[in-house]
Amino acid sequence: MPRKSAAYLTDLGARVFAAVDATPAVALRVSRGLVRANLYGIDSHGVVRIADYVMMAKRGIIVPAAAPAVVKESPVIAVVDGNWAFGQITADRAMAAAIQKASSIGVGIGSTVRAAHVGAIGEYTEQAAGQGLVGLAFVNGIGKFVAPFGGRARQLSTNPISLAVPVPGGRPVLVDFASSVVAEGKLRVARNKGAKIPAGLVIDQGGESADDPNAFYAGGALLPLGGLMAGHKGYGLSIMCEVLAGMLSGSGVAALEPQKGNGCCFVALDPGAFRPREAFLDDVRRFVETLRATPPMPGVAQVLVPGDPEARAEQERLRDGIALDDVTWHGIVDAAKSVGVEA
Amino acid sequence: MPRKSAAYLTDLGARVFAAVDATPAVALRVSRGLVRANLYGIDSHGVVRIADYVMMAKRGIIVPAAAPAVVKESPVIAVVDGNWAFGQITADRAMAAAIQKASSIGVGIGSTVRAAHVGAIGEYTEQAAGQGLVGLAFVNGIGKFVAPFGGRARQLSTNPISLAVPVPGGRPVLVDFASSVVAEGKLRVARNKGAKIPAGLVIDQGGESADDPNAFYAGGALLPLGGLMAGHKGYGLSIMCEVLAGMLSGSGVAALEPQKGNGCCFVALDPGAFRPREAFLDDVRRFVETLRATPPMPGVAQVLVPGDPEARAEQERLRDGIALDDVTWHGIVDAAKSVGVEA
Repeated sequence: MPRKSAAYLTDLGARVFAAVDATPAVALRVSRGLVRANLYGIDSHGVVRIADYVMMAKRGIIVPAAAPAVVKESPVIAVVDGNWAFGQITADRAMAAAIQKASSIGVGIGSTVRAAHVGAIGEYTEQAAGQGLVGLAFVNGIGKFVAPFGGRARQLSTNPISLAVPVPGGRPVLVDFASSVVAEGKLRVARNKGAKIPAGLVIDQGGESADDPNAFYAGGALLPLGGLMAGHKGYGLSIMCEVLAGMLSGSGVAALEPQKGNGCCFVALDPGAFRPREAFLDDVRRFVETLRATPPMPGVAQVLVPGDPEARAEQERLRDGIALDDVTWHGIVDAAKSVGVEA
Repeated sequence: MPRKSAAYLTDLGARVFAAVDATPAVALRVSRGLVRANLYGIDSHGVVRIADYVMMAKRGIIVPAAAPAVVKESPVIAVVDGNWAFGQITADRAMAAAIQKASSIGVGIGSTVRAAHVGAIGEYTEQAAGQGLVGLAFVNGIGKFVAPFGGRARQLSTNPISLAVPVPGGRPVLVDFASSVVAEGKLRVARNKGAKIPAGLVIDQGGESADDPNAFYAGGALLPLGGLMAGHKGYGLSIMCEVLAGMLSGSGVAALEPQKGNGCCFVALDPGAFRPREAFLDDVRRFVETLRATPPMPGVAQVLVPGDPEARAEQERLRDGIALDDVTWHGIVDAAKSVGVEA
């Protein structure tokens, strides 16, 4: 299992994306986003995507030289048309607009249309938190993976939600999760190992609960967060993403027509527009300290705050490098070679 | 088990609240909100609260004659101080401000401080949908019920989230759920029946999974949505509510100090500020039709859209009346009598 440094992978990704016609700045930005996901432990959204992105660029699904443009704007809202540039560039532009508007009027919303895959969405809410703002992201997705509650056919994407909140003297609280009960990547891992999965994650094509991950790939579906018992809640969250990210923007919804990219609804909020900023930050600081001080369950060392696992993973992986399985690594090497880049 | 008509219960509640010093208009409004919850099948937030509200009014936790006031305002934001008026009145004022601002600038946010119990929060997002807007609500709560993921002590409220979306020619999509895996009221029902509960809802005081609802009342905790496996997601949603509803407003957070009321963050969004309104509504209409047409799981008659179960319950209960258990009914009768009102 190869182990590579973040710096090496960032440089490699940047060289690959530059070779498919991205400017050096765009190529570096996209590569950094993928490596950030690996550092945070979100390998499904990391450098494994280099090969996908090269394939998409070759097929015109991503247009690396395109430039996103704001196509609708008000003092609070911006709609950014990505023109199928790398999704990260489109999403950066939308969150930058939300941040700028929130800094001026207290609230800003940046939406995207024609945005290619944007990567791990916590990257964008973190940008808001980095400016002292609360960041929210609702994103809808590309394929149909998840059954509505009570249904046995796929209709919904894994539609993620993110929140980032600045913490004085620390890293932001960082929530970032899919509205399905697990990410599809976890099924893939189980399938590759030949392992069973717990009940309540997947149904087979007939709508029966399955403990074999292959049931999903043979026409089954992921269940929404809450599973067979409380899946109406995850279903509601997923609908929230489809409405806010896919329909409000006009980006589109996988249940209605095939999607090539992510619809995004990014919100930035200035706490100082609601109440004295220091009072807000003091509440946040005391709240996260209180959560971390909660007595843990048996077998749990410490209660964490969202963002803590990512911080720990980053520390380890900056020190030890990022381990890549052979399939992922060879996929990257081959994709690089196909555009004339030596890994 | 007494069965009463919605009209009768609305009138009774209005007479009771008027007797504790609410104006006739306020008394009727609050009573209508509770009866709406019963009609929608949300009995935990229905007329069972009449007795609670009378007790709170007597103890000064609710001040029925108080008037909420906007204490901070911008073109996009209003913070409403409820002055401990009935929470419904404060919440109405905050959502009205959000709606007015969204109608003018595309987005509006109404927050509350010193709001007493606001009832079922779908009532407020439904107001936004009634004006052709998308409504969102993040609310935090009064007590500590839910353990953080990995923890064995209660730190969080059951913090609900709601979304309402206008549907052309139909009732709005209406999402309204607690970020805990189940509401506390369901444990109470199981306890009163002497029934066991499924694993993954509750832990006991030692942090072990429990199938006895009494474990919760003996110092245990509810788990966040997602339970033992994916509870980091419900934990994230709950934190979202604490931050947006409790901290951004300054209303407060149960983990830090005892709370007397609900903090609210209501958002209204005008789809027409993002894209042509008719195109948005057409997407919503096609989306809900597609979801309802999903092949159902074995044993499920039809896939529903959030809001459908409430519409069915309302139809039945308008026709057949609202069934109340004896304890609830006697509680209402006694509370009424205590303020000189005959049931």
